[in-house]
Order: sequence, then C-alpha cells, then structure tokens
Amino acid sequence: MKRLSIRNLHVSLVAGIIAAMTMQTASVAAPQSATDTITIERSKILTQPGVFGVFTMFKLRPEWNKVPATERMDSAAEVAKLIEKHKDNVLVDLYLTRGLETNSDFFFRINAYDLAKAQTFMREFRSTTIGKNADVFDTLVGVTKPLNYITKAKSPELNAGLSAATYIGDAPRYVIVIPVKKNAEWWNLSFEQRLKEMETHTVPTLPYLVNVKRKLYHSTGLDDIDFITYFETNDLIAFNNLLISLASVPENKYHVRWGNPTTLGTILSPENVIKALSE
Amino acid sequence: MKRLSIRNLHVSLVAGIIAAMTMQTASVAAPQSATDTITIERSKILTQPGVFGVFTMFKLRPEWNKVPATERMDSAAEVAKLIEKHKDNVLVDLYLTRGLETNSDFFFRINAYDLAKAQTFMREFRSTTIGKNADVFDTLVGVTKPLNYITKAKSPELNAGLSAATYIGDAPRYVIVIPVKKNAEWWNLSFEQRLKEMETHTVPTLPYLVNVKRKLYHSTGLDDIDFITYFETNDLIAFNNLLISLASVPENKYHVRWGNPTTLGTILSPENVIKALSE
Amino acid sequence: MKRLSIRNLHVSLVAGIIAAMTMQTASVAAPQSATDTITIERSKILTQPGVFGVFTMFKLRPEWNKVPATERMDSAAEVAKLIEKHKDNVLVDLYLTRGLETNSDFFFRINAYDLAKAQTFMREFRSTTIGKNADVFDTLVGVTKPLNYITKAKSPELNAGLSAATYIGDAPRYVIVIPVKKNAEWWNLSFEQRLKEMETHTVPTLPYLVNVKRKLYHSTGLDDIDFITYFETNDLIAFNNLLISLASVPENKYHVRWGNPTTLGTILSPENVIKALSE
Amino acid sequence: MKRLSIRNLHVSLVAGIIAAMTMQTASVAAPQSATDTITIERSKILTQPGVFGVFTMFKLRPEWNKVPATERMDSAAEVAKLIEKHKDNVLVDLYLTRGLETNSDFFFRINAYDLAKAQTFMREFRSTTIGKNADVFDTLVGVTKPLNYITKAKSPELNAGLSAATYIGDAPRYVIVIPVKKNAEWWNLSFEQRLKEMETHTVPTLPYLVNVKRKLYHSTGLDDIDFITYFETNDLIAFNNLLISLASVPENKYHVRWGNPTTLGTILSPENVIKALSE
Amino acid sequence: MKRLSIRNLHVSLVAGIIAAMTMQTASVAAPQSATDTITIERSKILTQPGVFGVFTMFKLRPEWNKVPATERMDSAAEVAKLIEKHKDNVLVDLYLTRGLETNSDFFFRINAYDLAKAQTFMREFRSTTIGKNADVFDTLVGVTKPLNYITKAKSPELNAGLSAATYIGDAPRYVIVIPVKKNAEWWNLSFEQRLKEMETHTVPTLPYLVNVKRKLYHSTGLDDIDFITYFETNDLIAFNNLLISLASVPENKYHVRWGNPTTLGTILSPENVIKALSE
Repeated sequence: MKRLSIRNLHVSLVAGIIAAMTMQTASVAAPQSATDTITIERSKILTQPGVFGVFTMFKLRPEWNKVPATERMDSAAEVAKLIEKHKDNVLVDLYLTRGLETNSDFFFRINAYDLAKAQTFMREFRSTTIGKNADVFDTLVGVTKPLNYITKAKSPELNAGLSAATYIGDAPRYVIVIPVKKNAEWWNLSFEQRLKEMETHTVPTLPYLVNVKRKLYHSTGLDDIDFITYFETNDLIAFNNLLISLASVPENKYHVRWGNPTTLGTILSPENVIKALSE
Repeated sequence: MKRLSIRNLHVSLVAGIIAAMTMQTASVAAPQSATDTITIERSKILTQPGVFGVFTMFKLRPEWNKVPATERMDSAAEVAKLIEKHKDNVLVDLYLTRGLETNSDFFFRINAYDLAKAQTFMREFRSTTIGKNADVFDTLVGVTKPLNYITKAKSPELNAGLSAATYIGDAPRYVIVIPVKKNAEWWNLSFEQRLKEMETHTVPTLPYLVNVKRKLYHSTGLDDIDFITYFETNDLIAFNNLLISLASVPENKYHVRWGNPTTLGTILSPENVIKALSE
Repeated sequence: MKRLSIRNLHVSLVAGIIAAMTMQTASVAAPQSATDTITIERSKILTQPGVFGVFTMFKLRPEWNKVPATERMDSAAEVAKLIEKHKDNVLVDLYLTRGLETNSDFFFRINAYDLAKAQTFMREFRSTTIGKNADVFDTLVGVTKPLNYITKAKSPELNAGLSAATYIGDAPRYVIVIPVKKNAEWWNLSFEQRLKEMETHTVPTLPYLVNVKRKLYHSTGLDDIDFITYFETNDLIAFNNLLISLASVPENKYHVRWGNPTTLGTILSPENVIKALSE
Repeated sequence: MKRLSIRNLHVSLVAGIIAAMTMQTASVAAPQSATDTITIERSKILTQPGVFGVFTMFKLRPEWNKVPATERMDSAAEVAKLIEKHKDNVLVDLYLTRGLETNSDFFFRINAYDLAKAQTFMREFRSTTIGKNADVFDTLVGVTKPLNYITKAKSPELNAGLSAATYIGDAPRYVIVIPVKKNAEWWNLSFEQRLKEMETHTVPTLPYLVNVKRKLYHSTGLDDIDFITYFETNDLIAFNNLLISLASVPENKYHVRWGNPTTLGTILSPENVIKALSE
Repeated sequence: MKRLSIRNLHVSLVAGIIAAMTMQTASVAAPQSATDTITIERSKILTQPGVFGVFTMFKLRPEWNKVPATERMDSAAEVAKLIEKHKDNVLVDLYLTRGLETNSDFFFRINAYDLAKAQTFMREFRSTTIGKNADVFDTLVGVTKPLNYITKAKSPELNAGLSAATYIGDAPRYVIVIPVKKNAEWWNLSFEQRLKEMETHTVPTLPYLVNVKRKLYHSTGLDDIDFITYFETNDLIAFNNLLISLASVPENKYHVRWGNPTTLGTILSPENVIKALSE
C-alpha cells in the first residue's frame, strides 16, 4: 500500500520539480553580486530589486558619558569620514531614537548590492569612538525584490491606485521600522488566497500614501522575520490611523510578529544624529 | 476563474478606496504640528486631542550611590531648571516608583503638541547628573484623539453617565500606567460590535469615576501597543475592584497585553521625586 | 437597527449602573488610609482586610563580597534599626532564599495599612549598606480583602471545614510565595460558576491545613497578577502533595500564571537572614 | 437552586475530605526531617524516597580570569574541604558543562534528607573563591517519592520489565538534566488515564535501560516545574533515540516545559571539575 | 475493568518491547566512541554518521577594545595554534557574524567523533586572549545520523533527485545556521505520515541544490531543539526563495521553533575571522 502511494506521488513529484526549477530560474536572476565597480546612487539603489538592507539599532553604554567631550564631539567627523570611505559600496542612513525608544539611541539603515560590503561597513563602524561605546540592540537583514502581489498583471486596479498616489506632505521628520513575521498558515495558503488578502490589505492604505512613504525588504531565511517594513512620515496621527486600518483586515490574523520592536525615530543627517548624542 | 473573482472584487475595491479616503480626511485633521509659539497650559494640553504623550521609566544604576551627596542633592534643582527651559514645549510630570516596582525608580510623563519636542526634552534629561546615572527601562509613546465609541451620538446614555460622574475623593496620591494591546480578532470586528463591547466595558466603570481619574493615549504603529491607559487615585481598593470589573467583561478576551508592565507609583512634585531618590 | 439595539441596552445599562454602584459602596469601605496613629500589631495586621502587602525579592551583587567584613557584619544591626524606626508604620518579615533560588538571596514581606508607608520603608532600605549592594529581582503588591467565595453564607459546609482545621505541625521552617494570574475566561464566568470551581479547589486543601498555613493578597490592577499566595510549612512533602491536588482541579485550567517565579525560602529572624548573608 | 447544588455537593465534599485525609496520611509518612544523626551513604540516599535534590547551575564571571592562578588552583582543595565539612548532611556531585552549554560552566547536584542543610551547603559554597566568581544561572529543587504509576500492583508486566533491565554499558561519561512541567489538562486526567499514558511512555524506554540510567525528583510547588529528570549515559546516540521515543507518545502532548534548559555535561570528580575550570 | 485493559495491553507491550529492542540494536551501532587514534579528515568527518557537531556563538565584550593592539593581533596565531594542537580530535570551522548579527561576532562549528573532545577544545579556547574577552551567546549540540526519510528504499524518486543535484555555484561566501524544534503532534504522527510530509518538504528544495549546500545534525535530548540545519550559499536571494518554499509546505505547521536565532555569517578562514575582529 505504501509503495502504491509513493508511485502515485511520482507524477506530482516530477511535475513539482519541473515547476519549481522554472520558478527558480526566474527568481534568482536578480543582480546580486558582480558589483565591484558600481557607484551607489541614492535614487537608484532605493528603488531597485536585489538590494540588501541592513538595519542596526545601537544603544550607547554609560561609559560614553565618560569619554572626553572633545573626543565625543569629533565623532560626527569620524563617522562622516567612514561613510565617505565606503560611499562606493553602501548607502548609509542614520536616525535618532534616543528619547523615543527604550533599547536604542540611534540606528543605521545600510543599502548595498553586496551584503558582505554592508557587513564590512558595520564592522568598521564598531571600531569608531562612538561604535566602541555602543551596544547593538537589534539587527535586521533583508533584500528588495520585485512586486509580488499588487502587480499590473495580477491586480490592475489596485496597482493603478498605488501608482497614482504620491506623497504630498512636508518632508518627513519621522521614521518607523516594523519587522513582520507571518505564520505557517499564511505561507500554506495558495497564491490566489494570499493575493486576495493582500488586496484587502492594500485598499485602506491608498488614502495614506499622500502622508506616508513605504519601503519593503524580504527577510525569510536571512533573519528570524519575513519582512522589514520601513516608513517615513511627517504626520504621526495619519500613520496611527493607517496602522489601525492594517490591523483591521484579515491578513493581520496571520501575523506572529508585527513590530516587537517597532522603532520610532527622527530623520536627521548622520552628522546631526551623532552631534545630538555627543552633547 | 481568478479573473472573475478579481473583477468581482473591483466594485468593492473602488467603494473601499472612496470610503477610506473620506474617513481619512476627517481623522487626520487633528492639530498636530504648527506649534512653535504655543505656550503649554496644563488644563488645556491634558484635555485636547492631538497631544503626544511620552512615558519613560528609569531605574537608577548602582553608580548613583557613589555620586557625591552634594551632587546628588543638586539634582532636583538641575531637573527643575531643565523643566523650566522647556516649559513652552512640553508639560512634564514625574512620579516615584522606587519601593513599589522592580524595574523603575521613577518615571516621566511628557505631554507635547510636537513629538520631536518631547524627544528633545527626554534627550537632554539624559545628560543631567541623575539622567546619566539611570537606565531607561521602558518608553511608551501615544497620542490623544477624540472619543471614539462612547460619544453623544453613538452611545447617548452612557455618554451622559460619563459626563455626570466626577472625581470627588481626596487628591490622588497614586498613579497607575497600564499599556494595552488588542488582538487581530478585535480589530477585525465591525465598528458596531466593538461599540457594543466598549459599552459593556464602560458600564461597570461608572461607579468608580468618583474614586479614579482616567486618561487615554493611542499608540498603534507608534509603539508595540494600542493604548496607554493612565489612572490617578487615592483609593487603591476601589481601583482593584474597578480593574476586576474590567477583567470580567468579554472585551478582556481580546487583550494580548494588559499591563506587563503595570506601573504603580506615587504622585509627587518633580522636585520631591528627585529628592526622595537623592537621600 | 443599531438604534434599537442601543435602546434595548438601555434598561440593562441603568440596572447595571445601579448594581455596580451598590456593590462598590460596600467594597470600598475597607480601612484603607486614616492610619497615622495606628500601632502595628502582628496578630491584628496579619488577619485584617484592607492591609497592603509588598513582597520584594533581592539579589546581592558581586560587589557585596568586596564590602569590608566589619561593615557587612554591621548590616544586621543597621537593618534592625531601620525596622525599629518604621515599627509604627509597617510590619517587616525577612526570609532567606540564597541556596534555594536563582534570582534572589533574600526577600521582604511588608504589611502596612497605608501603601505609601510600605514604599517609604522599602526606599529607605535601599540606602542601607546591604540595600545598596543588592538588586531588586521582583516586587509583588497586593491587598487583603474579606473572604469572597467560601463564606459562611455562600458555602457553609466548606467554611466550617476551613474554620475547624488548625495548623498542628512544628513551627514552620519554610516559606513559599506563588503569584497567580487568571485568564479572561475565568473573570467572565458568573459568580456562581467561580464559586463552584473554588469549592472544588478548596476540598482537597482541607487535609493539608494541619501542615500548611496560608494567606492571600489581591493584586488585580496593582500589579501584573491577580493574587499573591503565601504559604508557611514545615513539611515540604505535604506541601508538594497539596500543590499537586490544586493542579488537579478544573480551576487550574484558568491559570495564565501560577508561580513564575515560585519563591522558596527559609523562615528566620531579620537579624539571622542578614547575618547568614554577611558571613 | 444554588442551595440545592451546594447541598448535593455536601455528600461528595465530606467523602472527598475523608479520602484526601486518608491519602495524605500515607503520603506524608516519608522520612523527611529527623535527620540530625544520619550519616549520608551514597547508595542509600540515591535510592530512598523523601530525599531532597537541589541542582544549581553556575557560570563563571569574567573576573574569574583575573583571580591569581595560584588562588584559582587552590579552589579544588577549598571545595573538597567544604564537601568534607558537610559530608554528614549532604551528598555532593559536581559536573562540567563549560564547552557544551551556554549559560553554565558547572553544576551541583545536592542530595539531602533535610532541605535546609542543602541550602546551607550551597550558601557556604557561595563564599568560596570560585563561588564568589560565579553567577547562579538556574536552581531546581525537588524531592524523591515512591513509584507512583508503574508499580508491582498497578502495572505488573511493565514493573517487571523495569526491574529486569540493568545498565550494562561502560561507566557513564555524560549527564543530562531535563526539567519537566505538565499542563492543567494532564493533572485533571483521572489516575487511570494518567497510568495508561505513563505505560505507553514507559514501553519504548525499556530497551534503553541498558544504556541510560535514570532518576526522578518531584518539584510541584517547590519550584516552577513538576519533575527533574536526571540521566547518565555513555552512549549519546542511544540517548537521542530514547528521547525521540519519548517525544513520540501522547504523554508528550501534555508538556508545557520539557527541557528549557536541557543541561548536558560530563561526569568528573568534584576536584577535576574545579581543576578543569582553573586552568 | 482496569485489570482487563492492562491485560489487553500485555500483548502489545511485549510486542513493543521486542520491536523497540530490535530497532535500538541497529541504531546504536554508530561509531561513537573508540576514536583515540583516528585522524580527522575533513571530507570524511563531514559526511559520516555518528559525528557530533558543536556550534558556539560568541560575542566580544567591550573590554576587548582595551586589550593592547599587539595582543589582539597575536590572537589569530594563538587560535591557529590551538586548532593545530587539537587537529587529531576535532575539525574546527570559524565564521564571522559581526555586522550581520545582534548577539554574536563570530561562531565555531566543531565536528568530532567524541563529544568530550569537542568540549575540551571549546573549554581551552575560553582561556585564549580572545576567548577570555568573549561571552558565549548560544551553544547547539547535535549528532549526524543516517538518512531517515528520503532513502533509496523509502522514497526512491526523490532520493534519486537528491543524488543527482549538485552544487554548481561559486564558492559559498555565506553560512546560515537554523535550529529547528518540532511539536508533540509531529512526533506522534506515524512514520508514514512523517515520510509523506518530508517528501512534500523535499520537492521544492531540489532546484535550489545547485545554489545551496545543506547539512543536518540531530539534537533531541542533547539540546532543547530537534535539529541543527546548516547551509552554505553564495546566492542569498536563492536562499530566501528556498526558505519561503519550505515555509509554504504543511510540515512547517509542526514547527515550534525554526530559527530564533537564525545565524547569518560569512565564510572565512579562522585566521581571517580573528583578524577581522582584531582591527
């Protein structure tokens, strides 16, 4: 009897292998590695697929207060120099969380075509004066990929809605990073079922695109989460309403982690982040 | 078949987008940012919507005991001076938890029309003598919003009950802060269902309004909770009975977090909080 | 349709408010605050309702070993003096856990008619030599209340059983503290259902009253638990059997926390606890 | 109606009390306390009921590396002397976990007829040079009791199987300690149901008794677990297969904790454990 | 009635014991211990059953920055010397995680025929300069075993697929370690059911074998997990797709732990790992 079931399995196995191989050929074609001579352009790297994102949250140790004031003040220049040194390898953003978060004072977002280069930058930061006086509280690693659900082909009306909406608010002063993990039930839904849930998820977000900018990194297997969702806004009440809307759709029932931690910070130049922490 | 279901989806999608956009126009109209010349008035800022609340719980490090006694004693004045400096930006309350809590010795409640200004105050506090000798144990961020469920229009009898009840006890000596997070099932209920549950939740609270003052901040998306509930009372047995009543209604079944931590402290002037910790 | 359901709700709302107000009038009548001239009598304060209990678990830091031996030895006298100073405000018990627990070396049980006075004692303890060298691992706050379920009126036979049973063992050498939290399902049961479950819970405890003394504090809203259960015994195998009996009734299915931590210690005079830790 | 149900309850209550009192008379008769003049014999204390077991896991602090080498080397003798001093009160075993565990470097198993004496030994260890440089990571407290399920009377075939099986491997080099906690559903099963599950649990263990030695301590109420399971083996692949067998029976569905932590170490004399950590 | 059920049990008990003993005879025959004169060959030890794997994740303490630069620089040679000393006992791999992980800077994978020898190596590493300045964050212990489900006999087509697939990418630059624990429901499935689920699990992995290398260690009872899954790849987007595929099969519903932590690092020689951390 067991033989039989194996034999029956045969057909679907072979079909499955072929299907999987085809899928994979397409999905691996992202521009992952031959990146040595690429210069980093902000507008390009922030919109392309196949780009790695490393978020690292830091908390200053009490010893930082005992570093001589002049040395602390020189930190902004030291970090600026490090960013300049790596500017052909990584795009560096820095945010201030002290006063709004428990476990971090500042955090990095590094974008890179080659993950090893992001690692090298973050490793070298650890040897700067401020890096030596800070503990890593959290690290999130992900990679950008082409749109999956709300594409022109699969969900034309909503795709049009997304394309039409543009951020029209003042320059965002706030950043929010929310890691997401979905449960086994979600991943075992058929693609059609997940598409339907993501459409229901997307509808209430449309009106907020005028107030909130969004970006998505995929993390399954690279980290203990499935997605890193990144937001910028100048209107935190709109953002609060957006997140209530996202809580109120069935897709939310598939979350095993949504936040934990949510990180809320302010958007400043790297220099000003370090200066604010050096006073 | 998939085409068809997408097409069927079309009508509800468009309707949904319109509905969502309408909703959002109303809800974002809170007075969030143009606040530069506003002076902070306690009675106003504590009753208006669109006000940010930042709660920060601190625990003194053992090193605090080694700070020279005179320097410790000067801390109350140093903090008072900082509060004075920021008095046009933030309203500062300070509470004593040492002796009643494990993870904190004191905590701040900052109210501000502009969240960035609350952040600046809390960041500068970290550079005071006592701030340098304390670790942040918890930070809660929320914003006040207009009443949602028990309004004059939606629940007139209960709204009248709420309006009629007034605190008549002695000046409260105790403060309790309880963060709240509700699950996906709650947020996926219809508004009518949630209104019904909140009415059932509100009824048993009415008799306690003579003994307990309450205030609510909304946190979804700004923090890993949905609400910060803040209480003042002079009658902790009444408060215990109130919370048992709130535990005994169906709405409690939707909580994924209710407390954890509950913070219980005493209400003192900022000067007296710091002095109590400097002895 | 909604109007209608609200209108239907009206009658029960008003009834509910009246019922709740009546209940509350009775339950708040405990002797909470006017306590300034009360002297603390052990036999009274340990049997009255309306008494606050503060349990604080402490763990010595490694630095304690570096405090000069004479200073360590003087600690017992210093703590005795502090207890004497506060003897009209709080009843102080101290227990030794070093060797039996991971996260504490000793713990306090403070009983007080006024919670703020318990806070003041615990705050001043933190400034003693041993207090400065110890970290708080846990704090539990509760208040005693009149019997709720197994009263003469509601459960006469069991109440008689409880009254008849007396501790007849040797003086207890061991103390066990077990915090308890029940889930929303429990609190949403009717009083009759909870009474029935508490009767089933009480029956198997009766034979152990000869070996185990018990005391209960209520914590809902004052802390992240519902109850602090406190036990003294000289027969730990009887205690183990008692707790297996309590695990084996349906009421146990409503626990979300039962222990975590369970604290097991030995009963000694405050002086001997401090001396044991000073050697 | 309520009166009636109480009245109906009456009969079963009285029966329950009598039954419980009878049970308790039997179970408390273990030789718990009058132990002052008993000498500890390894072969006896490790097989008797009514013996307390205290497991304490320790992790060396980084400061241990700064203790002068000669002082570190003297530690083995200092601990040996302490063991000798207490040899009439406790049986001391010591195991090496450094290199195999994250949170401990070594652990004690103390067997004692009187728990307070185990506490005294562990407290005095904390004042030795190595004890002062180590943090307690975990403490497990339990007590041995007579066989409950697989007895000659209740499960004769399996009892015979257990009696017939003997360890025939080389002297065990490895120790494994696995704490166990069962859920409320388990404890609410009837004794017959639990007996049936324990029989199903026991069957697959029989073949491994030639490779694995086992010992059980009961912890309900003394600690936040129900059992401490202790194993010795020289064949870790057999042990892995045994634990897979135990995972594969229905009784495993009632575990709320099984391990967490599992502690794996090597069996050495106390002297050699301390020496290995002093190099 | 109970007697009867026991008697009925008798037959299956005896059958079970015999079956279990037979099984065990086979499975324990792995070459576990008589290993004193075996030289370690990388290609052999990494493919044989009965080999223990110890993964140890380390995080440098802040004090590492204060070790004199020359001493830090000598660390690579010191570790190389230690590896050389133990080369007949253990195979040592070292990976760099600083910059990509929160809780570790580097980790070891030790392969050994005798677990005690892996322990000795790891213990001696703790006495090197870098070992003394690092904390263990995690330790995973497992053992290799023969294929269980997708064998030539039990699942011939899939086994052929596995055998045919070969890694054809560039030399892997990245390593990922993911611990796995399955729930009681999984282990209570029949072997046939588990085989079926593992076949469904294996199908989507086949296309990725050209990009991703895999290795499996079994941990039940040796650690608080069931498996250690180890991956090497040079294509992290393919790896992300592979893990999404594995999340999307029913077997994922039986995971109680999958990752937590996932560890992502880069593959370098031991010397280069230590050097990168010594700069």
